[in-house]
Amino acid sequence: MVFWGLVLARGSSKSIPHKNIQLLDNKPLIGWVLEPMKNSAVFDDIWVSTDDKQIASIAQSYGVKVHDRSQESATDSSSSLAAILEFIKTHRGADQICLVQCTSPFLREQYLKSAYHLMIDQKYDSVFSVYRSHCLRWSIGLNALNFDEHCRPRRQDWTGEYVESGHFYCFTTALVQNDGILQGGKCGVIEIPKKFCLEIDDMFDLQLAKYYRNFF
Amino acid sequence: MVFWGLVLARGSSKSIPHKNIQLLDNKPLIGWVLEPMKNSAVFDDIWVSTDDKQIASIAQSYGVKVHDRSQESATDSSSSLAAILEFIKTHRGADQICLVQCTSPFLREQYLKSAYHLMIDQKYDSVFSVYRSHCLRWSIGLNALNFDEHCRPRRQDWTGEYVESGHFYCFTTALVQNDGILQGGKCGVIEIPKKFCLEIDDMFDLQLAKYYRNFF
Repeated sequence: MVFWGLVLARGSSKSIPHKNIQLLDNKPLIGWVLEPMKNSAVFDDIWVSTDDKQIASIAQSYGVKVHDRSQESATDSSSSLAAILEFIKTHRGADQICLVQCTSPFLREQYLKSAYHLMIDQKYDSVFSVYRSHCLRWSIGLNALNFDEHCRPRRQDWTGEYVESGHFYCFTTALVQNDGILQGGKCGVIEIPKKFCLEIDDMFDLQLAKYYRNFF
Repeated sequence: MVFWGLVLARGSSKSIPHKNIQLLDNKPLIGWVLEPMKNSAVFDDIWVSTDDKQIASIAQSYGVKVHDRSQESATDSSSSLAAILEFIKTHRGADQICLVQCTSPFLREQYLKSAYHLMIDQKYDSVFSVYRSHCLRWSIGLNALNFDEHCRPRRQDWTGEYVESGHFYCFTTALVQNDGILQGGKCGVIEIPKKFCLEIDDMFDLQLAKYYRNFF
C-alpha cells in the first residue's frame, strides 16, 4: 500500500494574493501543513501541486516533491477533484492519497496518524476531518433545516452534526478515479476540536490566526 | 405598539461561572449588549431577567429594568421559551419582544434598528439574526446533509444557508403565547457579517473576543 500526501497550492487566489505562502509567525501557510505531514511519518511521499514558481521553491525547501500543475486545472473555476485527477494521471503509484489544505493551518500530526490508521490498518475507502456543530440552520427561504422550530433542541439533548473542517480528505485512488468522488465507500471521519479549525479565507482570518497562536 | 428588549441572564452557568458579567475590555458581557440596545432607541423598555443579585445590580447600573426570575425558570435544564413565558406572565404590556443574548457581545445597534423596521413598520411576527454559511455538513451517521457528495458545490455556485447567529430573536407576544414558538408567522432575518458573530461559550471564546476587539 502506497499512501501519499498531496497539497494543492495555486498561485492565484481571489481573497488574499499568494494566500498559500502568506506568513503566519514567519512561516508560510503551506509550511504549517507540510511540517505536521512530514512529522506524522505516515506518507510514503508528500507532493505539492502548483502552477507557481515561488510556491514550488518554498515547497522544495521543505523537502517535498513538486507537481507542475497545468494551467487548465488551476483556474478560479477549477475544482479540487479536477486537480486531483490531473495529478493522479501524471503520477501513478499511490493506492491512497490524503489531500491536505493549507487554508487550515492548525493541523496536528496526531490527526493524520488517526486518518492513516483508518485508511491503511482498517482499510477505509475515505476519511475526512470534521468538527462537531450544534448550529441551527435555515434555508435562504427560511425553512428550518436541522431542527423543529416548534421544539428547539437544547444543546445537551442533541448530538449535533459534523461539519467538514477542511484540514484533509483521504481517499483511495480507485474511489476518485472510478467514482469521481472524495467521500464514499467505507467512509470515516476524524473529529478535530473546534479551536484547531480556523480556516483562512481572508485577511481577517489570517490576523485572527496570529492570535490563536497564543493558545497553542 | 409596545416593543421591549429582554436579556435573560442566569447567575449560574456551566462553562464559565457568572458568564454574563465576565469582563471583556473592562465591560461585563451584559453591558456589551445593553449599550447597543439603549443606543438603538428602538425599545420602549429594556428588561434583564435574572435570578442573581450581582447581575441585577449591574443591570440597574445601565438604567434598565430588572425582572426577578424564578428559580424554576433558571435551572440548567430551563429553556429560553419557559423563561420568556414566565417573564410575559409577570410583566404585561409588550406587543413585541426582542430577546437579546449577551453571549453574542459584538451586537451593533444598526441590526436592532433593522429588526425594528421589520417588526414594527413591516408588521413581521418574528425576526432573528443570522449569518451566511457555506459549510458542508454531515449527519453523525455520515450522510451528507446539505450537498450532493457526487457533485460537491463550489462556494461561488451556492447561495449557502443561514445559521442563527444568536444575537437576537424578535417575536410578537401573541406568537410565543399562542403558538409557543419564537420563529414563525411572517418571519424574517437580519444578516450579520460573520466577524461580528463570535459566541462566548467558554474561556477560549472569551479570550478570543479580546482579540476581535482589535479589529472593530
